[in-house]
Amino acid sequence: MFEAYRITRRPSRMGSLPRLALACCLALSASAAHAASAAEPMQQIRAVRAAHERAILNEFTHLLAIPNVASDRPDIRRNAEAVALMLRQRGLTPQLLEPAGKTDVPPLVYAQWKVPGAKRTLVLYAHYDGQPVNPAEWVTPPFTPTLRTRPADEGGTVIALDSPGATNSDTRLYARGAGDDKAGVMVILSALETLRALHDQPTDNLIIAFEGEEEAGSPHLGQILSAHRALFDAQLWVICDGPVHPSGRIEITYGARGDMNADLTVYGAIRPLHSGHYGNWAPNPALRLARLLASMKDDKGHVTIAGWYDGIEPLGARERRALADAARYDGEIRHELGLAAPESTWSLPEAVMLPSLNINGMRSANVGAEAANVIPATATAVLDMRLVVGNDPHGQFEKLRGYVQSRGYYVIDREPTPAERLAHPLIATLKLRPGIYAAARMPMSDPLALSLAAAIRSAASQPPLEMPSSGGSLPLSVIKQALGTPSMVVSIANYDDNQHAANEDLRLGNLWDGIDIYTALLMHR
Amino acid sequence: MFEAYRITRRPSRMGSLPRLALACCLALSASAAHAASAAEPMQQIRAVRAAHERAILNEFTHLLAIPNVASDRPDIRRNAEAVALMLRQRGLTPQLLEPAGKTDVPPLVYAQWKVPGAKRTLVLYAHYDGQPVNPAEWVTPPFTPTLRTRPADEGGTVIALDSPGATNSDTRLYARGAGDDKAGVMVILSALETLRALHDQPTDNLIIAFEGEEEAGSPHLGQILSAHRALFDAQLWVICDGPVHPSGRIEITYGARGDMNADLTVYGAIRPLHSGHYGNWAPNPALRLARLLASMKDDKGHVTIAGWYDGIEPLGARERRALADAARYDGEIRHELGLAAPESTWSLPEAVMLPSLNINGMRSANVGAEAANVIPATATAVLDMRLVVGNDPHGQFEKLRGYVQSRGYYVIDREPTPAERLAHPLIATLKLRPGIYAAARMPMSDPLALSLAAAIRSAASQPPLEMPSSGGSLPLSVIKQALGTPSMVVSIANYDDNQHAANEDLRLGNLWDGIDIYTALLMHR
Repeated sequence: MFEAYRITRRPSRMGSLPRLALACCLALSASAAHAASAAEPMQQIRAVRAAHERAILNEFTHLLAIPNVASDRPDIRRNAEAVALMLRQRGLTPQLLEPAGKTDVPPLVYAQWKVPGAKRTLVLYAHYDGQPVNPAEWVTPPFTPTLRTRPADEGGTVIALDSPGATNSDTRLYARGAGDDKAGVMVILSALETLRALHDQPTDNLIIAFEGEEEAGSPHLGQILSAHRALFDAQLWVICDGPVHPSGRIEITYGARGDMNADLTVYGAIRPLHSGHYGNWAPNPALRLARLLASMKDDKGHVTIAGWYDGIEPLGARERRALADAARYDGEIRHELGLAAPESTWSLPEAVMLPSLNINGMRSANVGAEAANVIPATATAVLDMRLVVGNDPHGQFEKLRGYVQSRGYYVIDREPTPAERLAHPLIATLKLRPGIYAAARMPMSDPLALSLAAAIRSAASQPPLEMPSSGGSLPLSVIKQALGTPSMVVSIANYDDNQHAANEDLRLGNLWDGIDIYTALLMHR
Repeated sequence: MFEAYRITRRPSRMGSLPRLALACCLALSASAAHAASAAEPMQQIRAVRAAHERAILNEFTHLLAIPNVASDRPDIRRNAEAVALMLRQRGLTPQLLEPAGKTDVPPLVYAQWKVPGAKRTLVLYAHYDGQPVNPAEWVTPPFTPTLRTRPADEGGTVIALDSPGATNSDTRLYARGAGDDKAGVMVILSALETLRALHDQPTDNLIIAFEGEEEAGSPHLGQILSAHRALFDAQLWVICDGPVHPSGRIEITYGARGDMNADLTVYGAIRPLHSGHYGNWAPNPALRLARLLASMKDDKGHVTIAGWYDGIEPLGARERRALADAARYDGEIRHELGLAAPESTWSLPEAVMLPSLNINGMRSANVGAEAANVIPATATAVLDMRLVVGNDPHGQFEKLRGYVQSRGYYVIDREPTPAERLAHPLIATLKLRPGIYAAARMPMSDPLALSLAAAIRSAASQPPLEMPSSGGSLPLSVIKQALGTPSMVVSIANYDDNQHAANEDLRLGNLWDGIDIYTALLMHR
């Protein structure tokens, strides 16, 4: 952990904070204390954070070194215990919450900070698990946190953690979870620490909730919340996850698309065949898969599956204005991503307010040096379906299944039997993966959310960009269904953080801004 | 090596064989000698071979344990030296031939057996290199030769090399190269050894040529033959490579399709993107590749690329009759491969007499446990194009390139630059791989070939199946171009040997039959 610190000149409410023992508090360096002494609240926050960047970075890299793929249960538990220790070191009393009757589930790390006289309670949420990794694709190992002067693909060179410029804003920290979403965990923990150093306390009671299987689709979050409902009596969840807008503007979003994934496999012969002895005659499953996928979208980038866009809840005028505001960046984003044209006729903000269908990955036999002269035996695609409010996930999946059937396929959810192979020329295995999120969205005009947004606005260097919903998915609907509580999302990671891909990185400037903004948010009036 | 052996009762021409020193000859076991004493030539050949199966198997597994991917130069050289030693142990004087001025090329292992009074010379060809391997896909490591009672996917269990039933005909030997084509090397070496044991010599002068980079497309075979033209003065090459017909009938083919491969990559954004934040808007290269591939063939399995089937040299009446004879097995093959229907409207023998276009492999990002919620940055397919007599390889490739361009792509042969990405919505990298074979075919009525075919017919338990051309590719055109010499192919491996794929295996019965047939072939009259 980074050392606790304190500032002496600011009016303190420390006396009312008995749960925050000061066992680990250390004296703040004289210069930072001086900078803070004469400053406005935001300047004080920034000074405290700036004085402790190296300690924060040190603590963060220790956390990032623990592998955090949700299916890797022993390591996930090590993460949970490390995060719980960090909460204890901040004077809180963490608990590891699990669903009733289960022990082999990534625990939700929970803590509360009761504020005498506070009338409302906020839940601060982040997740400590990360997407699966393919280490061969990384420039440095995903669980060896590594600093670079700039992004690796722009020629950034590796620098040591203790080198002079290590904490510069443009430094990139490479590791799985650096941006998504141990950054969120670290920002929340550092905001709590900054508050303590300021001898201040939050405006509202706080609940801290760090999930351990968000990237696996939060399969147990609803059960955990339901099993411990009394611990989550709150008015609003604030989710620290996801990147800021590509313009660099902090993004506040009032909802998130839902998400589900499906595995689709089609078949050729029962084994890979020599492409010379059978080429032109034995069916090639890679070609079959290509045909099946090719017709899923039309030339405008619109999904062709019958009814795909049916039943979507319409947006209000305020939400539509927000989309138009955000669309101004499309040209820049396209240019930065090296795209001559987008896939679809929609603006980017419009596109992410609609249900999507996307190929996450596709594979048949081998390419590159491992390619062989075969006709592959199978071809597989992983499909990603984002959902909006009004979509029933299972209904949407049934539309996909219907589409595959309409293309002449016999659709099953397991390997075909030999008899089925001989009876059906076209066979597809289509399976929904576990971890389905529905979409959720709260009104942009909610009074508590408006107050938090005002505090964020006061802390951010540019006006935040507000969006009715994130294109990405978060367990907002799970929270809504289990507890009835709405959620808003305040994102801090750099938008080019390669989240979900190889070489995920966090720009340190985003970490520092995030800490400032979350500290201000906790102090909203 | 397996021990040399001899039979005493058969009329011997050993006196005329000074090059075959008998240093390693051992006495044949009494029972085998007795069995051979009263037998016809084929029975003698079978008895000699049967008595030495275990020694042959032992020698073969030692050879298979040396990794043999052509790009792995140190191991390829170890193979060449092992094969040369085996030739020396048979009394021949091998040479390792390389192209003029090059030393880092898999050598062609060469030897000759001069027969006093012989008027013609046959070249016996096989290749000792194998297709690349992905060890993760193998049931046992590809270079740990392993016996199983039956095919692994039919429940065959591993048995030790020295177990009682190890040499049974139905035993499968798993290793890369077991079928394709160290089997060919071993059959030729064992046929020479059998001749020696019979105190006999071949009808024609023999040249032995074992190539080391056939699976890489024989990039240097032409140069090696041209540089050593005087060593290859012969009337006919006999190629021991490829599987027998699925019916189990030995296959004699008088040509082979040509072959070339191309790598095709299409692009999305410059990096993988979060499928939530960009889904529906950022182009997905997996979908682009799917569209490009999907329209390469029509519903009849015919390639749609303009002019794909132009210029093909027509078959003669004898060749057409052979195709009709072979087509009778289509239903059985389809059933055995678990296919409800073939891809195309052609019979299998007809299909492999036409130029093909096949997807060897396809990949975009990851599937399975490594799949992540991304929009991939690239998608790649490896394409395999088989060629027939009348096709110019580069002309055929230009048709493919023209097709990709006709689909709106800007086609280059390297990574796109940032400026190109912004200028062209659709960019494809299309590159022909090194190692291009043209097709070659000799007349089925060639007199020397007819004599060899008659000898094979006398040795085979079922009548051989004759085919105007193999669907697979062999360096026949390279030989024809470098030396002007025609080639015929006599295949011995089981047709379900998984050649070019994981879990390649040889059925031992095919090895034993192959030795018998090649010994008989060398003794043709």
